[in-house]
Amino acid sequence: MFEAKIDLGVLRGCIEAITAVADEGRLRITEDGLKLRSVDPANVAMVSFELQSDAFDDFSLELAGAVETEKEGKGEEGKETSIGMDFVKLLGILGIGGRGGEEIELKLDEKGQKLFTRMGSLAYTISLLASDSLRKDPKVPELEFPAQVILEIEDFKRGIRAAEKIAENIVLGVDGESEEFFMEAEGEMDKLRLGLRKEQLIYLTPPAEKVRSLYSLDYLSAMSRGISACHAEQLTLNLGKDYPLQIDFEVADGRGKVSYLVAPRIESE
Amino acid sequence: MFEAKIDLGVLRGCIEAITAVADEGRLRITEDGLKLRSVDPANVAMVSFELQSDAFDDFSLELAGAVETEKEGKGEEGKETSIGMDFVKLLGILGIGGRGGEEIELKLDEKGQKLFTRMGSLAYTISLLASDSLRKDPKVPELEFPAQVILEIEDFKRGIRAAEKIAENIVLGVDGESEEFFMEAEGEMDKLRLGLRKEQLIYLTPPAEKVRSLYSLDYLSAMSRGISACHAEQLTLNLGKDYPLQIDFEVADGRGKVSYLVAPRIESE
Amino acid sequence: MFEAKIDLGVLRGCIEAITAVADEGRLRITEDGLKLRSVDPANVAMVSFELQSDAFDDFSLELAGAVETEKEGKGEEGKETSIGMDFVKLLGILGIGGRGGEEIELKLDEKGQKLFTRMGSLAYTISLLASDSLRKDPKVPELEFPAQVILEIEDFKRGIRAAEKIAENIVLGVDGESEEFFMEAEGEMDKLRLGLRKEQLIYLTPPAEKVRSLYSLDYLSAMSRGISACHAEQLTLNLGKDYPLQIDFEVADGRGKVSYLVAPRIESE
Repeated sequence: MFEAKIDLGVLRGCIEAITAVADEGRLRITEDGLKLRSVDPANVAMVSFELQSDAFDDFSLELAGAVETEKEGKGEEGKETSIGMDFVKLLGILGIGGRGGEEIELKLDEKGQKLFTRMGSLAYTISLLASDSLRKDPKVPELEFPAQVILEIEDFKRGIRAAEKIAENIVLGVDGESEEFFMEAEGEMDKLRLGLRKEQLIYLTPPAEKVRSLYSLDYLSAMSRGISACHAEQLTLNLGKDYPLQIDFEVADGRGKVSYLVAPRIESE
Repeated sequence: MFEAKIDLGVLRGCIEAITAVADEGRLRITEDGLKLRSVDPANVAMVSFELQSDAFDDFSLELAGAVETEKEGKGEEGKETSIGMDFVKLLGILGIGGRGGEEIELKLDEKGQKLFTRMGSLAYTISLLASDSLRKDPKVPELEFPAQVILEIEDFKRGIRAAEKIAENIVLGVDGESEEFFMEAEGEMDKLRLGLRKEQLIYLTPPAEKVRSLYSLDYLSAMSRGISACHAEQLTLNLGKDYPLQIDFEVADGRGKVSYLVAPRIESE
Repeated sequence: MFEAKIDLGVLRGCIEAITAVADEGRLRITEDGLKLRSVDPANVAMVSFELQSDAFDDFSLELAGAVETEKEGKGEEGKETSIGMDFVKLLGILGIGGRGGEEIELKLDEKGQKLFTRMGSLAYTISLLASDSLRKDPKVPELEFPAQVILEIEDFKRGIRAAEKIAENIVLGVDGESEEFFMEAEGEMDKLRLGLRKEQLIYLTPPAEKVRSLYSLDYLSAMSRGISACHAEQLTLNLGKDYPLQIDFEVADGRGKVSYLVAPRIESE
C-alpha cells in the first residue's frame, strides 16, 4: 500500500517536466521515492526522473511480499511497485487545485488499479493504465561527454525562444579555445547566435576541441517549458560533437532531479 | 420616461449574470427597480433577476398614463414599462467603459425604442428589441426543496471547474445522515468528488434522507461564470432528489438578487 | 559604415508604430538619425517616421564617398544610406530581448546587405531587403487642415475601442461652434458618440464651420495600437471636411516623431 502527501506545486512541476517528453509511463514507487524513465514515441528523447521520499510530507510504502515478488520477480531487491500513469491527465487534475501552499494526498488502492487523490475537500480517483501495456523502461546509453556547461536557466530559455522565431533546429556547442558556450540557429535569411563566455556561465568544462551538435527545436522547446515549470535556477548541459545532449536539473529544492537526453540531428552543411 | 445612473461595475456584473441563461429578454422597469425573468432557448434553465431602485445612484420613472395602460392594461398596478434587451450586446458595450468606479447613465426614449447610455464622454445609443417579439415571462414553478446549503462561492466554483475537466454532467446532493454536501462527476475512467461537511459550509438544512440530482455542466458552468462576475461571496443552493436546483445569490451589495433554476437530468445508472 | 546603440524598448516602440502602416520599407540612415516614409499596400495610409541620432546612446555613420554617390547621386547632400527592412520580422526579433532597460547594438555590414544586431549575449544577423526592390518614398501631399486637436491618447484609444465593437468605419470631426471634438460610429442598430469639449482636450483650433470625415477603422485601429506601443501621452489630430486625417505623436521622449496620414472614405448618407 502506498500513501503519500506532497506540496501540490512541487508535484505539478515534476509532472510537467515529465510531459515534456512522455505523455504516459511507468512510475516506479520504492521506499526511496518515485522513479521514472521513459522515451518519447519517436525514440528521440528520454526523460529520467527521481523524487526522493523526503520531498514528500508523508511517504509510506508497504508491499505484501507475494504481490511484490510476482510483479517484479526480484526478491529482496524488488521492494517496489509500479503504476501506469497518464501524466497529461494527471497534470490537468493537478491544475484544478488551488494556487498557494496546498497539499495533495495520494493513495494507491490495494490492486494498484486506481490512485485516490485528495486536494482539500476535492477527491479525485484516477484509473491507472495497465502497467504491462506500457513500454519497458528504456536503457540509459553509456555516454561520455567531452564538455559540460552549467548555466542560468534564463539564459538557456532565452536562446531557445529566440531560435523558435526563425528555425526548426538549433546548434548547441562549446568552443574549447575561447571557452565559450554557444547556441546557434539559422533561418531562411537570418542567423542567430547566443554566446556565453566562461565568466557568464556558472561552470564550464571546456573540451579539447570545438564541439557542436544540432538538435530539433521541437524537443528542446518542450524541455525548456518543462524546466520552467520546476522553478529550478540552473541547468547542467552535457555536450559533445554530433552527440546526444543531456540536460540535468534539480526539482523539489534538490530532493529530486530530472534528466533529459535528446539525440542529435545530422547537420547537413 | 425612465432615467437612471448606476455604477458601471455593478451593472456589468448583473448583465453578465443574466447572460449565463438568457441572451435577450424583457426587462421590466418599475418604481421599485428592474426585474427580469427569462428561460433559456432549450427551456432547461431560468433566471430571475431583481435590482432595487436604491442600487442606483439616480432612478426616476415617469409613465404617461395612456402609454402605460395601453402597454400593460393593468390600471394602477401597471406602473411599469418593459424593454426588450439584447443582453449580450449590452455586455459588450459595458465592456468598453473604464475599470474604476465609473458610472453609467441610462435614459429611455419617449417611444421606448432606444436606450441612451453615457459613460463619461462616451455616448451609446442602443436600439431595443420589440418587446412583443420576445417570449412571455415564464412562470416560476412551485417547488419544495428538502435540502438547503449555503456555501462559499469559491467552493462551488472549484467543484464545477474540476468536473469540467472530465465530465458533461455533475451530481449535486446532500447526505442527511453525515450532514455533507457533495458534488460528484464521473468521466470515462476517473471519478471526482467534492465533499463539504456541515462545519465547512455556512449553513445546511439537511434532508431526512440522502438527496442527489444530476445536472448538465453546460448550464452550471455558465452559471458559475455568471456568479463570479457579481463578486458575491456566498451562494444558497436548494436541492432535492432528481429535482431542479435553485441557486440564489445577492448582487449590488444586497440591493439586488439573482436566482437560477435548472432542471435535472435523468441519472442513467 | 553604420553603428548604433539604443534602448531596446524605445526601438521596439518605433518599429511597432511603423508596422501599423507598413510591413517593410526603406529606412534612410543619415547623420541626423533614421528616417522612413512608407505607404500601405492599398495606398490608403502613410507613415512618416524620424528618430534623431541623439535618441541613440551611440550613433556613428561613415560613408565611403563612392558608395554614397553611387547610391544616392546627390553629392554632399547625399550623406546618407538606406536599407530595406522587413519591420515585421525585426519586431519579432526585438521581442526576444529582455524587458528592462536593455540595449540593442546595430551594425550594418560593409555591403549594406546585412544588419548585425546584438542584445546582450544574443547576436542576430538580419538579411536586408534589396533596397531597389522597395517602392520609392511616397510624396507627402500638401494639405491644409482647418482644425487641430491635441488630446490624451487614452481618450482616442477609448473611442476607437468602442467603435470597433459595432462598426467598420468611424467619423472624426470638430464642431467649431460648440468647440467639441467628436468620434462617431454607427452599427446596424446602434450608435456611438464620444464627445470631448474644449476643456476636456489639451488644445483645440476650432474650424470656422463643422468638419467631419469618415475613416476605415482597420487603419485607425492599427494606428491606435502603434501609438500605444510608443508610450506617448498625447496626440495631435489634424482634421478637415471629407479630408485626410493626420495623426502626430512623439517617440523616444521627444527625440523622434511619427506621423500617420489616412485617406477619408466617402460618407454614403
